[in-house]
Amino acid sequence: MEVIKQFELSKEYLESLRQGIEEANIDFIQESLDGVKVADIAAILDELSMSESIYVLRLLEKQLASDILIELDEDNLLKVLPELETAEVASWIELMDSDDGADILSLFGEKEREEVIAEIQDRVKLEQILELLRYEEDTAGGIMAKEFIRANKNWNVIQTINEIRRQAENVEKIYSIYVVNNRLQLLGRVSLKKIILAASETKIEDIFEEDVISVPVHMDQEEVAAVMRKYDLESVPVVNAKNKLVGRITVDDILDVVQEEADEDIQAMAGVSADIEESDSVFTISKARLPWLLIGVIGGLMGAKIIGFFEDGLSKYLALASFIPLVAATGGNVGIQASSLIVQSLASKSAFDDTPLQRFLKGLSVALLNGFVLGGFVFLVVVFLYGFDPIFGITVGSALFCVVLLSSFMGTVTPLVLNRFGINPAIASGPFITTTNDLLGLAVYFGVAMLLLNL
Amino acid sequence: MEVIKQFELSKEYLESLRQGIEEANIDFIQESLDGVKVADIAAILDELSMSESIYVLRLLEKQLASDILIELDEDNLLKVLPELETAEVASWIELMDSDDGADILSLFGEKEREEVIAEIQDRVKLEQILELLRYEEDTAGGIMAKEFIRANKNWNVIQTINEIRRQAENVEKIYSIYVVNNRLQLLGRVSLKKIILAASETKIEDIFEEDVISVPVHMDQEEVAAVMRKYDLESVPVVNAKNKLVGRITVDDILDVVQEEADEDIQAMAGVSADIEESDSVFTISKARLPWLLIGVIGGLMGAKIIGFFEDGLSKYLALASFIPLVAATGGNVGIQASSLIVQSLASKSAFDDTPLQRFLKGLSVALLNGFVLGGFVFLVVVFLYGFDPIFGITVGSALFCVVLLSSFMGTVTPLVLNRFGINPAIASGPFITTTNDLLGLAVYFGVAMLLLNL
Repeated sequence: MEVIKQFELSKEYLESLRQGIEEANIDFIQESLDGVKVADIAAILDELSMSESIYVLRLLEKQLASDILIELDEDNLLKVLPELETAEVASWIELMDSDDGADILSLFGEKEREEVIAEIQDRVKLEQILELLRYEEDTAGGIMAKEFIRANKNWNVIQTINEIRRQAENVEKIYSIYVVNNRLQLLGRVSLKKIILAASETKIEDIFEEDVISVPVHMDQEEVAAVMRKYDLESVPVVNAKNKLVGRITVDDILDVVQEEADEDIQAMAGVSADIEESDSVFTISKARLPWLLIGVIGGLMGAKIIGFFEDGLSKYLALASFIPLVAATGGNVGIQASSLIVQSLASKSAFDDTPLQRFLKGLSVALLNGFVLGGFVFLVVVFLYGFDPIFGITVGSALFCVVLLSSFMGTVTPLVLNRFGINPAIASGPFITTTNDLLGLAVYFGVAMLLLNL
Repeated sequence: MEVIKQFELSKEYLESLRQGIEEANIDFIQESLDGVKVADIAAILDELSMSESIYVLRLLEKQLASDILIELDEDNLLKVLPELETAEVASWIELMDSDDGADILSLFGEKEREEVIAEIQDRVKLEQILELLRYEEDTAGGIMAKEFIRANKNWNVIQTINEIRRQAENVEKIYSIYVVNNRLQLLGRVSLKKIILAASETKIEDIFEEDVISVPVHMDQEEVAAVMRKYDLESVPVVNAKNKLVGRITVDDILDVVQEEADEDIQAMAGVSADIEESDSVFTISKARLPWLLIGVIGGLMGAKIIGFFEDGLSKYLALASFIPLVAATGGNVGIQASSLIVQSLASKSAFDDTPLQRFLKGLSVALLNGFVLGGFVFLVVVFLYGFDPIFGITVGSALFCVVLLSSFMGTVTPLVLNRFGINPAIASGPFITTTNDLLGLAVYFGVAMLLLNL
C-alpha cells in the first residue's frame, strides 16, 4: 500500500533506465519496473526515444505491454506503432478492450490497418473492433466499449453470476448488469450490490430497475458527458435505433472527454492550434502559434491602412491617436466576454434556454448598460482629468459606447454561427475574432470622430 | 426504459406546473413529477421562484426532496435554504450522504448552521458531517464522503457480504471494498466482482489487492482529479497522516471538479468574475463583467498618457500612429499564448517537467523565432507593400520583435508568480495581463521609434 508510488518517476531513474537499455540489462529493466503502475510506465516510456520504448515494451509481460501501449501519449504512439511488427500489434490488440483496440487501429493508415486486422486471431474481438471502427470518433459509438455484462430478464441470480464468471476476464470493471429481452433490447439495469444481496433463485425480472438512462449510439460525446454528469452515472449503456444494447461507456473515458474538450476550448481561446505541451520542441510550439499570430499581424497591418485613411483628420486632431489602444482593447475584451458566455451556454443546453430573440435582447441590454457606464467614465476622465474639449470627450466616449455595442453583437453572433456550421464555437473567443473586432472598432472610432469633430 | 426522459422538461410543462402551484393542485404536481429523475426535477425547480420551489419540495417524498435539494443550482439553494424551517433542513440532511450534508451546511452562516446542527438527530451522520466540515473545501477531505464499505482483512467473504447488507442503505454505490487492519489503516481493496466470484469461506486476506492508490486528506482536489484520471479510478480511498482510512471520493464528484476548474479557467481568461450563466439577470451579468472592462479602460486611458508623452515625435512621424493597433494586438496575443501553455503545464505536473531554467530558455527560443518571423514579415510589408522608408520599416519590425519577446516573458512569468501565491494562474491569460502587455508594448514601440527615428 502506498500513497501513489511516485518515487521511481524521477529523472535519475530515467537516466538509469536509459543506461540499462543501452547495456541491454534486461534484469534491471524488468525488476525496476516490477509493480509500477501502467500509467506510470507509460509516462516513463513517453520520455524515452521510439526505439527505447519498443525495447522496453518487448521485455514486459504481454498483457502489461498491451495495457501500457494504450496509455502512451498519442505523439509517442504515432512514432512507435509503425515500427512494430504487424503480428505483434495484432497480438497486443487482442488483449485490449474493444474500444482501446479500435483506437489503436484508427491510428494506422488504411493499408497498415488492413494488415494488422488480418493478423488478429480472436474473431469475437475482431468483430467487436470492426463494429466500433464504423462509428464516428466523437460519438457515443466511437467511445463505447463492447465489454459489458448482459443478463436476460428471465435469468435468476445464479445464472447471472455464472455469466459474470464467464466474462470476468473480459470485463474488468463491472458497475451495472444490463437487463435485456430475447431480442437483446435494453430493459433496465441491476446493480452488482443487488445481485450480492439477493437470494440465488431470485429472478432478475423481479429486482431490476426499469428507469435506466441510456444514450443513442450517434449522440455527440460532449452530450454523453453532460448526461453522465447531470445524472451522476458511473457507466451508461449505448443503444441503437431499435433500442438494442450495443455497448457501454464508463466514466473514466468521459473524464478524458471533459478534460480534452476543456483543453480544446482554452487552446482555441488562446489561439494555439493542435494539442501542444510544454515538453514539445521549440519548432513544434512555434508552428502551432505562428499562424494565429500572423492573423493578428495581418489584422494590425490592415488597421494601419484604416488609420492611414484618416491621416488628414488625425493630423488636425493628434490626440485621436492616443485613444486608439483604449478603443481596440475594450472592443477585444467585450467580444471575448460575450462569446465565452455563449460558448458556455452552448455546452450546457437546457430545455429552458432563452429563445434567440430573448438572447439578443438580453445581450443588447448588457451591452447598453456596460457601454453607457464605460463611455460615461471615459468622457469624465478625458474632459475633467485630462482637460480635453468636451466635444472631444463626447467623441471618445460615444465611440467607445458604439464599440461596446458592436463587439457584443459580434461576440454573441460569431459563436452561434460557428456552432451552426459545426465549428468549435470557442474559436470565437480567439485571435481571429479579436482581430476583426479591432478593425471594426477602429473604423467606428474614426467614423464617429469624423462626424463629431467635423474633420 | 427511455432514452432520457426529457419530454416533461418543456416550457409548456413549466407553465402548467406554475399554474398547478398557484391553484394548489397537489395531485397534478405529485403525479406529473412521479418518475422524473432527481436532476431533472432540480432543473425544473431552478426555473421556479424561491417560494414555488419550496412549495414543490414539501409536496415530495422526504428522501426525494433531500436528493433534489443537493442538486439545486447554488444560486437557487442560497435563496431557498434560509426560508426553510431549521428542523426541516436537519431532517433532509439526515437523509443525505455525509459530503452532501456538509456542503449544504457550509452554505449557512455560522449562527444558522449551529441551529441546524442542533436539530440533527442522527448522531453518526452528525459526527461524520462535523468531521467533513473541518477540512478545506477544495481538498480531498472537503469532497470525500464518509459512506464506504470497509472490511477487516481477517474477515471472510460471508462476513463482508453481511457488512455490505448492513450498510446497503447508506452506501448507494459500491465500487470497491476497502480492506483495513485492526487499527483501521488502509491495506488494500477488493472488488465487488471478486466477492461475488469467491467462495463464502474465502478470507479477504487471500483475495485483496495490495497496491491500491489512495490520496492524502489534504491533497488539492485538482490533484485528486489528476490522479483519478491518470489511473482510471472510479473511486479513491482517502487516508490521514497515519494511513487511517477516513473517506472515499467517487468519480462523479471528480467529474464536477474537472468541469468547474475548466469553467473557472475559461472565465478567468475571458475576464468574467463569478460563475455567470446566460440565464442570470442583465444586472448580474453586467456586474460580473464591468470590473474587468474597467481595468481595460483604465489601461487604455494610461496608454493615452503614454502616447501623449510622445506627441512631439508622433506629430513629426504621423505614420507611427497607424501601427499602434498592430503592436498592441500582437503583444496581447503572444502573452495569452505563452501564459495558457504555462497554465496547462501547471495543471498537469509531471516528474519529468523541465527545470525553470530550461523552461525559460525554451520560451525564449520560441519568442526569438516567432519575433523574428513576425518582425521580418512586417518589415517587408511596411517597406515593399506600403512604401514606407526602410528605416521606418526597421522601426516597426524591431519594435514588434521586442514586444514579442517582452510579452512572452510576461506571459510565462506571470502565471508562475500567481501560482506561487496560490492565485488561479489562468487569470494571467485574462484582461489584466493583456492590458499590462498593451502598455508595455506601447512604451517599447515608442521607445524604439524615438531611438531609431531620432525623434
